[in-house]
Amino acid sequence: MDYHQNGFRPGDPSVAPENRRLKDVADVLIVGSGPAGLTLAAYLAQFPHIHTRLIERRDGPLQIGQADGIACRTMEMFAAFGFVHDVLREAYWVNETAFWAPQGGHIARTGRIDDVEPGLSEMPHVILSQARVQEFYLRAMAQAPTRLTPEYGVTVEGLSIPEDPAAPVEVSLSTGECAKARFVVGCDGARSAVRKALDIPLHGEAANAAWGVMDVLAVTDFPDIRLKCAIQSADEGALLIIPREGGHMVRLYIELDKLAPTERVADLEITPDHLIAGAQRILAPYTLEVREVAWWSVYEIGQRTAPRFADTAPDGPAPRVFIAGDACHTHSPKAGQGMNVSMQDAWNLGWKLQTVLEGRGGRDLLHSYSAERQAIAQDLIDFDKVFAAKFAAKSGATDTEFQNYFQKQGRYTAGVATRYTPSALTGTRHQDLATGFTLGMRFHSAPVIRWADAKPVHLGHVADLSGRWQLYVFAGKDPAAALALLQAPPENTQVNLVLRTPHRDTVLEPELLPRTGALGLRDYGRVFCPAPEADIFAERGIAPEGAAVLVRPDQYVAFIAPPGAAEDITAFLAAALG
Amino acid sequence: MDYHQNGFRPGDPSVAPENRRLKDVADVLIVGSGPAGLTLAAYLAQFPHIHTRLIERRDGPLQIGQADGIACRTMEMFAAFGFVHDVLREAYWVNETAFWAPQGGHIARTGRIDDVEPGLSEMPHVILSQARVQEFYLRAMAQAPTRLTPEYGVTVEGLSIPEDPAAPVEVSLSTGECAKARFVVGCDGARSAVRKALDIPLHGEAANAAWGVMDVLAVTDFPDIRLKCAIQSADEGALLIIPREGGHMVRLYIELDKLAPTERVADLEITPDHLIAGAQRILAPYTLEVREVAWWSVYEIGQRTAPRFADTAPDGPAPRVFIAGDACHTHSPKAGQGMNVSMQDAWNLGWKLQTVLEGRGGRDLLHSYSAERQAIAQDLIDFDKVFAAKFAAKSGATDTEFQNYFQKQGRYTAGVATRYTPSALTGTRHQDLATGFTLGMRFHSAPVIRWADAKPVHLGHVADLSGRWQLYVFAGKDPAAALALLQAPPENTQVNLVLRTPHRDTVLEPELLPRTGALGLRDYGRVFCPAPEADIFAERGIAPEGAAVLVRPDQYVAFIAPPGAAEDITAFLAAALG
Repeated sequence: MDYHQNGFRPGDPSVAPENRRLKDVADVLIVGSGPAGLTLAAYLAQFPHIHTRLIERRDGPLQIGQADGIACRTMEMFAAFGFVHDVLREAYWVNETAFWAPQGGHIARTGRIDDVEPGLSEMPHVILSQARVQEFYLRAMAQAPTRLTPEYGVTVEGLSIPEDPAAPVEVSLSTGECAKARFVVGCDGARSAVRKALDIPLHGEAANAAWGVMDVLAVTDFPDIRLKCAIQSADEGALLIIPREGGHMVRLYIELDKLAPTERVADLEITPDHLIAGAQRILAPYTLEVREVAWWSVYEIGQRTAPRFADTAPDGPAPRVFIAGDACHTHSPKAGQGMNVSMQDAWNLGWKLQTVLEGRGGRDLLHSYSAERQAIAQDLIDFDKVFAAKFAAKSGATDTEFQNYFQKQGRYTAGVATRYTPSALTGTRHQDLATGFTLGMRFHSAPVIRWADAKPVHLGHVADLSGRWQLYVFAGKDPAAALALLQAPPENTQVNLVLRTPHRDTVLEPELLPRTGALGLRDYGRVFCPAPEADIFAERGIAPEGAAVLVRPDQYVAFIAPPGAAEDITAFLAAALG
Repeated sequence: MDYHQNGFRPGDPSVAPENRRLKDVADVLIVGSGPAGLTLAAYLAQFPHIHTRLIERRDGPLQIGQADGIACRTMEMFAAFGFVHDVLREAYWVNETAFWAPQGGHIARTGRIDDVEPGLSEMPHVILSQARVQEFYLRAMAQAPTRLTPEYGVTVEGLSIPEDPAAPVEVSLSTGECAKARFVVGCDGARSAVRKALDIPLHGEAANAAWGVMDVLAVTDFPDIRLKCAIQSADEGALLIIPREGGHMVRLYIELDKLAPTERVADLEITPDHLIAGAQRILAPYTLEVREVAWWSVYEIGQRTAPRFADTAPDGPAPRVFIAGDACHTHSPKAGQGMNVSMQDAWNLGWKLQTVLEGRGGRDLLHSYSAERQAIAQDLIDFDKVFAAKFAAKSGATDTEFQNYFQKQGRYTAGVATRYTPSALTGTRHQDLATGFTLGMRFHSAPVIRWADAKPVHLGHVADLSGRWQLYVFAGKDPAAALALLQAPPENTQVNLVLRTPHRDTVLEPELLPRTGALGLRDYGRVFCPAPEADIFAERGIAPEGAAVLVRPDQYVAFIAPPGAAEDITAFLAAALG
């Protein structure tokens, strides 16, 4: 944590000094405080000059959430949001996954693998109630300079977008207020009022497979009850076990009968007892004695997506109304994608709105939100369909095919497969200078030693919610060009220098360090050296001449250049922001 | 974290359900909410049937603290108290220490070493303001079942201990109240009113060395400003640099002139400008430009200790009034002992008071507090005197002697040198069964894999504030005896079983697991297997027949036995608790 840079201030360093400016026309009106809405709100809440409002249909914070899987990529994001340490402490860690299949009349374990491929992320895949995640977001908002809190019990009744691009969007609220905002973001779920007001459809296949899900406290002799398990029985369907946080609770996903084309899941009249009995049949001869059902539901698998995530087409005027999260794409729960993708949507949109509202970028930058995220959502839904189908397939005596598929697709479920295609925001040149930092993909952090205090840290964790672009500069054999970038960073970037020498052998004049804060102190947190056990230059394929890797505020690699090419970086940024 | 074992409950799992019983006669009255008082209060606050009161002279929580060094051992303790993750996040990590000495007319670096010997503790040595540490304790108290909060602005005016051991101690408070309590603990600092009421002196040498200390935000070209540095100049005295949390602030300890025997530090009329000028002279030719002085003070080194820490002598009646922390021992600040030793005092006393108040032990157990902690305090003061003297010694061109001493004494400064001598609480037999767990010393944790969910964890982190004795059972080549202990733990102990087989190869019938919680669930958190990278059996010298290591609630190793000797363990515990 970096604090006291503007002078010593006692108290909790996570609580920023209050600083906000309320306006008659809000800058951003967010509809819905689920994962997407809260991610966007917690990000925008950091900026004193951006007036954000967040309205929520519920009367208060979520008490019991449905989503629970937190992908590695999301944990990396939580590091920037400042609460990953709390999630790591409370959550269940998905370390391994076991596979069970029919053998000789009952189920037997057919495999046990690492859930996440080693080295894929510095963060584990974890399970924690959506309600707790949302509380961490609410705390982050309350501690941010603008002290943002949701307005509960408020819904959208209508929305009007004036022709005049300088006039605010008008939103009729259930309170009778006509709220005015420069931008409106519908994070209001699968039945999004904002999406309906924009008349954007959801495309996708009709659901015809039903699943039951329940969180239980139970006593069982099934040996893998504290492991994530994919179980296929011979005749009783499939069961997915997801152990939950706290060491005792378990989530069970139980396959129900296929639905007829005209049938809905509500028609099945399922009760918790049905689900328990189904789980018991699948697990037999192991016993399952449920002591408490904490939550349960039945749902139909339905993968659908909206053709665009904004009010205007890519070739139209700059968009002013957006949809994010479940409002524009829905997934089956078991691949754990819904909540994670929704939060990534919001971060993508957040920094772009901030850039435009701060006058550092043109409004056409906002077109890129729908362009980037709609493609990702479609990609994930294609993956999800295959995943869900494979999961439910009764594939016979072994499930080797599913295991292989599971391993191969680990990058999807870890959330690190997202790759933006080349655009004004994603360059194509100089990939050879840093082969381990793929253009268009998230910056893949690696361990380093911070030069000034010899602390082992993760390089990617310098990223915060400041909205700055991070420029990771890897020194060449001759570090002169890299040192020059440290002293004169391109506008709007923050330089993080990685030298090639071991930290105890590194001599650096403190005068070369950038200044920080109101007191003009030197910033000792920007220079790093290789960790003895894992040389980042080798692990990330840095060329002998070094590399400058430009990373967006949402941690995606935008551009790579030789360290001496400061002008190229400036030119790329100017073009990207428009 | 272990939660939901009594049923699912939404919300923050760190907040226990409220459960407390107030009494006319408090069980424990704690005087003073510094590190010792808060440690004791946070511990006792966990027990619904113990009514604890905490009074504090100040009008509210500490805003700016003086102590800042948190030893590895204290961090291990914070893990049990549930806030080590917050401290790890906010604190400065002391990874390396640099030594500077005169060379050719000015100072030069003469050495740079790991601050803590590798493997000494799973926790780093860190620096964080005492005020923040105290806020974490206050939060832990407020989240505990009894919702304990300090009564601010209250002082002790008198104390009376009736002859009748069944009658309560009476304490006259500045509010006019005559508070009654079964036990009173003076954690009220070097000028302790409780100590004075007991008429216990402080023994020690008169101070005659004065030091200045200040926390500054500064710009300097001294290259090691973000490392802990011990600097000896040729003619300008000594300087100790301790970088502070947040990445910018630095604490400087500056040696002042020796005081004459009758002189007091106040006579020197020191100002911050004197201290800055002193630091600048020592650091020359490097520059130091102070932009802000966050806090400063001057102090005399004085090491003193009380001959006993309770109202009664070891051979007298059971004690009812105790003193802890600065009230009974004072240290020089630079070895970072004061706050750390004080907190260990309080945990030692806390579990003994709890044991007696719950009727699980005789009142004579309380004699062991003074016996154990007075010896430790004296030991540390002896160390501290030599350390402080060596630090201030102008030893010539190099300080090799000090470096050697520093390394050798790292266990003291890390807080892991404490060793209780044999007593009813500290056995002497069977050390050979587990040579890495020294009888009388703190349980030295090691990494293991939790069997049920394959999570890499630290074995010692199963310890919590439940007041239970932990029995770490290391299986022999034949695990039968160890498995029998898991099923039938000796009374008042919680068994943690470590098997010899890799976790993926370990087959264990869930029926063997102990039950936990109101729902009778199985406890999957008690069985461990060796970590692939560090076999705990080899690292901690476990004999082929295995070992059962009995550890007190404050994490000190009390007794070792073969796994088959359950009766020996029961007998030891019965004798220990009295």
